[in-house]
Amino acid sequence: MPEDELLQGLITDLRRGMLVLAVLASLEQPKYGYALLQDMQAKGIRIEANTLYPLLRRLEAQGLLLSEWDTTESRPRKYYSVSARGRVLFDRLRAEWQQITQTMQALLGEDEPR
Amino acid sequence: MPEDELLQGLITDLRRGMLVLAVLASLEQPKYGYALLQDMQAKGIRIEANTLYPLLRRLEAQGLLLSEWDTTESRPRKYYSVSARGRVLFDRLRAEWQQITQTMQALLGEDEPR
Repeated sequence: MPEDELLQGLITDLRRGMLVLAVLASLEQPKYGYALLQDMQAKGIRIEANTLYPLLRRLEAQGLLLSEWDTTESRPRKYYSVSARGRVLFDRLRAEWQQITQTMQALLGEDEPR
Repeated sequence: MPEDELLQGLITDLRRGMLVLAVLASLEQPKYGYALLQDMQAKGIRIEANTLYPLLRRLEAQGLLLSEWDTTESRPRKYYSVSARGRVLFDRLRAEWQQITQTMQALLGEDEPR
């Protein structure tokens, strides 16, 4: 496998696990898909529409997000928000993330291959 | 899907991407599989033998690790070390991890769903 393809695959693995956490953290206010995408990208999260939109549908199916159509504008938009269940899970996932981050920082600070 | 199963799945996704980075960081000194497993677990990384051993074989096949049999002891042991290619990739992956961590910390600090 070419060097860059291998690295890209590993980076994708690294990012993938964080996306659910990033989505839940970014939906403090209800947002429609495209606004959420722009918001996340503006915050430095490298995510594309073809990753985010299926993820939103999956999280809704899992009961972590709620959706509601806003039909007051000329173009109806589906707004997503975090459900009560989603908030509980977000707190636990965030705690896990903090623990992983601390472990990794300690590891990366101490044991670099030379 | 039951609550805990869903959470566990998300936590597994979160950890999976970090394992390659953790393995490369933990092989400053060549180690055989079981010693590496104990070392990683002692540092707080939740990884099991049935995850680590296939991962070591995969990383070797990808050219990121080298292995060597030590037959001087009564029980031959396969020692793994990071290849030159693995070191280059480790540096790039670590830089990516630092960037992701900073982005996530900023996000989690500012925009928590209430």
